[in-house]
Amino acid sequence: MGRMLLQAAANYHVETHLMEMDEECPAAHLCRHFVKGDIRDYDAVYNFGKKLDAITIEIENVNVEALEKLEVEGVKVYPNPSVLRIIQNKVLQKTFYQQNQIPTASFEITNSKKDIYLHQQFLPAIHKLGMGGYDGRGVQAINSTEEIENGFEEESVLEKKITIKKEIALTIAVDQNQKVALYPPVEMVFNDELNQLDYQICPAEINEKILWKIEAIALSAVRKFNSPGIFAVELFVDDDDEVYVNETAPRVHNSGHHTIEAHYCSQFDMLWRIILGYPLGNTKHILPSLMVNVVGSIGFEGAVVYKGIENILSIDNAFLHLYGKNTTKPGRKMGHVTILSTEKQDLIHKANIIKQALLVEAIAAGVN
Amino acid sequence: MGRMLLQAAANYHVETHLMEMDEECPAAHLCRHFVKGDIRDYDAVYNFGKKLDAITIEIENVNVEALEKLEVEGVKVYPNPSVLRIIQNKVLQKTFYQQNQIPTASFEITNSKKDIYLHQQFLPAIHKLGMGGYDGRGVQAINSTEEIENGFEEESVLEKKITIKKEIALTIAVDQNQKVALYPPVEMVFNDELNQLDYQICPAEINEKILWKIEAIALSAVRKFNSPGIFAVELFVDDDDEVYVNETAPRVHNSGHHTIEAHYCSQFDMLWRIILGYPLGNTKHILPSLMVNVVGSIGFEGAVVYKGIENILSIDNAFLHLYGKNTTKPGRKMGHVTILSTEKQDLIHKANIIKQALLVEAIAAGVN
Repeated sequence: MGRMLLQAAANYHVETHLMEMDEECPAAHLCRHFVKGDIRDYDAVYNFGKKLDAITIEIENVNVEALEKLEVEGVKVYPNPSVLRIIQNKVLQKTFYQQNQIPTASFEITNSKKDIYLHQQFLPAIHKLGMGGYDGRGVQAINSTEEIENGFEEESVLEKKITIKKEIALTIAVDQNQKVALYPPVEMVFNDELNQLDYQICPAEINEKILWKIEAIALSAVRKFNSPGIFAVELFVDDDDEVYVNETAPRVHNSGHHTIEAHYCSQFDMLWRIILGYPLGNTKHILPSLMVNVVGSIGFEGAVVYKGIENILSIDNAFLHLYGKNTTKPGRKMGHVTILSTEKQDLIHKANIIKQALLVEAIAAGVN
Repeated sequence: MGRMLLQAAANYHVETHLMEMDEECPAAHLCRHFVKGDIRDYDAVYNFGKKLDAITIEIENVNVEALEKLEVEGVKVYPNPSVLRIIQNKVLQKTFYQQNQIPTASFEITNSKKDIYLHQQFLPAIHKLGMGGYDGRGVQAINSTEEIENGFEEESVLEKKITIKKEIALTIAVDQNQKVALYPPVEMVFNDELNQLDYQICPAEINEKILWKIEAIALSAVRKFNSPGIFAVELFVDDDDEVYVNETAPRVHNSGHHTIEAHYCSQFDMLWRIILGYPLGNTKHILPSLMVNVVGSIGFEGAVVYKGIENILSIDNAFLHLYGKNTTKPGRKMGHVTILSTEKQDLIHKANIIKQALLVEAIAAGVN
């Protein structure tokens, strides 16, 4: 994310500073000033930010107390730290939706497995750790009483399972004057076997009534956050066409990768416009698009070698983004490919070719 | 150019090295390794290049002898140094067109003002220094016998003036297997008063017959150069619809700026595809486009301050690129704006708004 944000930054009159622990991280060589530091550490974040005009994030688990202090001292923070405080904790986030009448799957707060037993009427359910969960970690399906033993012993959300017909992400840009711009909705298609994103397609194939519902609900959630920034709202549509907010990422997000080529104004360019106080850009799509992640092939770990790139780039309007990570491991996100086409079937067909053709292997022998 | 090339590089698995004298140049902070050095110096270029896999250029006046030595030693050079040797010297370049039956304005080689007197039948003419001319320098109009005194005393080209109806640039990509891809032609519109580019528009407004002629001539010139790379061929169309090659830039070029947003594959992405041995990208345009340079306002010199950016970015599908130069002076190229629209009149209207709205001033008091 940082890397793509810095690619977009080079169009503007800004001096970029980046903090990361890894001096060889994908964004380290595209910024003006690199600072080695832990984003979870109060002092590191505070000292990094105190001389800057504005700060943004590419991941949620940044030290909020430091950002709040910086905000008080006049540094602009995108999103506002108050939003981050809510988002970082799934209990607070769910409660936020509930208190603001934003439809979300019904839930109970639990502090122990014992609490789950008290709410067995919620099963089958998803158990989510309040703090510290990320990208699949800290999330546990509890389908039956027998599985309660797998639950968390810390503050968590026990969420009633929804029969998901479609999983949608809607990106909304909010500028410093509370003006908003909505990107078309993206449909996330998951591979149930691997439990990972298969591809995402934009615009989502939904009827107008559901679209309006999604837009109204997502917009309402974002307005309640009351902060400028980019917001990727993830929503579920169930079999009855009811719409629920799953969670919100208050930042540039995976679900907006395709906006780089498929939309007039990318989410990265948009965030710079917001931070710099410029008018919001055009969120319309140039063509329908599909995005597939480039992930480390199973069986390989170590210094990365890409195979088959030439086959991908021979596909018309297929755009490759490699994130410059030096090492691969199975399933690691190493980049993505965006494809543009007017036809959905053509997009899916090409996505399948790409997934076959592009191999992310390692120089040394593979792992098992 | 280097800056935009590096923005595009970040999508690929490449480790970038950059050589420039100015450690604060626009590209210095977007590369992986910066080397301070003079591109005109043999040792600097040779030592810079000898450990690299491939080299490209953003300006022609790189030391050719060093590049030739590197090429012999196995470093790939885009374009081949043999092309650069021809392009760097206007005498060689014109002779190259003549020998290869590429239409170009008729000319004589002169070594002194005295020689011009011997070719008075060529007047009105343009006198161009063989070596060392760049961006308007080393070019002199000689309209009459009286003006011969302004001519150069070194090896130069005396070129018969053509009545220019249109000035066109055609970008051609050539990959390592001699496959080619042509971008649509661009029309350069000049401001005669200021003698600088007013704007360029793509596709050029020309009929099919002229288009074919332009494509055939430009392609023929590029094929004769016999090198992979990006070639921007500048051509004149005269009142009789005859087409002449003016000159060729064997590199990413100003006339291709608009390809970043207006075309599926930008000239910068295209050059990486060529260097990395990948298939050529899609040169088609997404929408017609217009590009205006952002130049230092008259009367200002020093640390740059931009005014009116918000007015430009409020125009739908106007894209700003600032090159990150720290100081401005009158007429200095500081960036560019690309506008997309289906209507030519709309493009020109918006270009005029942009030229009024965007001011490139300096922090300190102005100069006269």
